[in-house]
Amino acid sequence: MTAPDTDRFLRDLHELRKIGQFRTGVHRPTYSPEDMESRRWLLARLEECGLQAEMDGIGNIIGRHPGPGPKLLVGSHIETQNQAGWLDGALGVVAGVALARAGLPVDVICFADEEGHYGGFIGSRSASGTLTEAEIDGLSNRYHGKTLRDALREAGLEGLPRFTLDPARYKGFFELHIEQGTQLESRGLQVGVVTGIVAIWQYRILIEGMQDHAGGTTMAERRDAGLAAVRLLARIDGEFPMVCGERSTWTCGRIALEPGAQSIIPGRAEVLFQFRDIDVPTLERMERTLRAIVQESNRRERCTAVLETMSRSVPAPCHPAMMDALEQAAEEIAPGAHMRMPSGAGHDAQYMARLMPAAMLFTPSIGGISHHWAEDTKEEDLAVNLRVLHRAAERFLASNQPLS
Amino acid sequence: MTAPDTDRFLRDLHELRKIGQFRTGVHRPTYSPEDMESRRWLLARLEECGLQAEMDGIGNIIGRHPGPGPKLLVGSHIETQNQAGWLDGALGVVAGVALARAGLPVDVICFADEEGHYGGFIGSRSASGTLTEAEIDGLSNRYHGKTLRDALREAGLEGLPRFTLDPARYKGFFELHIEQGTQLESRGLQVGVVTGIVAIWQYRILIEGMQDHAGGTTMAERRDAGLAAVRLLARIDGEFPMVCGERSTWTCGRIALEPGAQSIIPGRAEVLFQFRDIDVPTLERMERTLRAIVQESNRRERCTAVLETMSRSVPAPCHPAMMDALEQAAEEIAPGAHMRMPSGAGHDAQYMARLMPAAMLFTPSIGGISHHWAEDTKEEDLAVNLRVLHRAAERFLASNQPLS
Repeated sequence: MTAPDTDRFLRDLHELRKIGQFRTGVHRPTYSPEDMESRRWLLARLEECGLQAEMDGIGNIIGRHPGPGPKLLVGSHIETQNQAGWLDGALGVVAGVALARAGLPVDVICFADEEGHYGGFIGSRSASGTLTEAEIDGLSNRYHGKTLRDALREAGLEGLPRFTLDPARYKGFFELHIEQGTQLESRGLQVGVVTGIVAIWQYRILIEGMQDHAGGTTMAERRDAGLAAVRLLARIDGEFPMVCGERSTWTCGRIALEPGAQSIIPGRAEVLFQFRDIDVPTLERMERTLRAIVQESNRRERCTAVLETMSRSVPAPCHPAMMDALEQAAEEIAPGAHMRMPSGAGHDAQYMARLMPAAMLFTPSIGGISHHWAEDTKEEDLAVNLRVLHRAAERFLASNQPLS
Repeated sequence: MTAPDTDRFLRDLHELRKIGQFRTGVHRPTYSPEDMESRRWLLARLEECGLQAEMDGIGNIIGRHPGPGPKLLVGSHIETQNQAGWLDGALGVVAGVALARAGLPVDVICFADEEGHYGGFIGSRSASGTLTEAEIDGLSNRYHGKTLRDALREAGLEGLPRFTLDPARYKGFFELHIEQGTQLESRGLQVGVVTGIVAIWQYRILIEGMQDHAGGTTMAERRDAGLAAVRLLARIDGEFPMVCGERSTWTCGRIALEPGAQSIIPGRAEVLFQFRDIDVPTLERMERTLRAIVQESNRRERCTAVLETMSRSVPAPCHPAMMDALEQAAEEIAPGAHMRMPSGAGHDAQYMARLMPAAMLFTPSIGGISHHWAEDTKEEDLAVNLRVLHRAAERFLASNQPLS
């Protein structure tokens, strides 16, 4: 068995870190000059490894292994959130380069705009063949409003064709990523073998009451949409623990009362609520509970609540054979310092999982810090995970697992 | 006993209604050209009645009865909220004119900016002697930001002195006003004898948690400030009915979560909460309950809640002898069609109550509509209330009630 060059891997990460440097992190929004510089940097590394490298019309980059035989696809994304970390995305791409440099038959891939400056996962969706030209026409930057078309033109990508992946070429897709949480760190572990990427079911609850004077309207007659929202959310708080899965999360990220003035009874309330799990029956149970709570609110309250489903993504389980290979490699390289865990956040891997067997590996995140320039992971942990990834990739390639 | 000229009274109201007319209501923001025109209209009416009329440096208008002997002070305000009603404020001023015209020894007063375009109740506060020049320097329009000084200058009021009332001149202050609620209408009543103006105790609750990723952070470790706010408000919802008074109101007008994004656990929450009652021991009991709830939240939650008192106004009880006079007159003129009730909203009368005996009379509001151009009251109810006010004023003047 070969071993990857972890020193070179770390040097690559630090070199990439300088492009768009911001304090101890990086500011490389999608299609910005720094982001395009990082993409050119990556193309050069891929060519150095002898891969056939190209950047396509959405900014996706692929470095294709020139030889015959089964391949792995390895990669992640390279742009960052604003003023964010040096590892989120970059880690998985540079790991792919390291595996290619070590001689494994891998294609290295870098998906554009996983971070969603213009549209979440447009790179992995384009590579999957599900991103239409019409959709590109409609997208713009969520911070400053520049259209995606303008950004692509300014980045020199206008008119370039967009490639789609051929699943038949690959045995599977591996993505190495930082955990962005504290599960590993809090247990003193080094390696997280990801079981799958949770589905996110997102809802908007709109409550209509009657706007009125806080002093002149009695408690008996008022129709306070804010209070109905509070009672509904309190009911969710009580009921969801009774029906959730072991690792489910549920979150109300936003409550907006109208008009939101101190002396006016709110006539309207909007709530954004979501829950996440990797298991569809659990998700369905939580949705049934949510619907029952809204129904009961409408039976009791003088306000009306309408539950609107905004989106329901599909969980993306990781492939059992790939997980086994990762776990076995972890036990050999970091014995007792690994565990299986779901990914609560979305990743490019969830789109790859629709095309081919996919798996993710997590490194610890110091303090769980993510989407912030202070994001960090110990170099020792980065190196250990590269070695685990490499050994698992070798084993999986050599196994009897058929091509997807 | 004399009787007021209700036909003339209604004609006056309709004439005033045309100044700044907006649909079926009026748009007369304080110190606007329409507002100043309405003030000049009022000065003319006062002079017609033989009163010595003046407008002062804040826009307050007083028409002084020239004769000797005990006087009553009667009035309200004349500006309106934006695109609002024809009766809110105007009713009480025109009623004062009607009483003067009927020969009662009344001074008619019109307080500037009760509606708070520049600062709530600056007119009644100025007339009470509690509005300083420094305060005027600091005020500006809440909608468009023009300074109060600029507005006064443009209205031609710059440099004029401001009068303060001499309480010794008056037996009491009467204010006729629309109810702005539905208590009278829902009971089929015509006349509300106001028991007093409630105090408003206003709070801000700031909750600090930890902003984090909705998917990557487990339920056990997250510190969701929005959820802590919901639980705290739900506790208030449960406890306040156990300690409140018969007519208390309590309202959360605003909940603001930071950052307020669908996939981010809120790290901060701000709640604006207030309660109102006319009875100080009741207010104190509600405040003790609020403090206990915040304390318990801090014992149980992983977030910290800080309770900040923004303001605590003082209830303004109406004078018993004046209320008796109003009630007796109501029983004679509208038998069985009246009741006693507190005012849940603030009025100029609450400032007058600090200087002299004060009382208010409410007419019904159709549909409880207020601060809207559709605000209205049946003319029959307006006329009945003028007659009740007139008879009560006559009786109270003639009674043994000493000067304040």
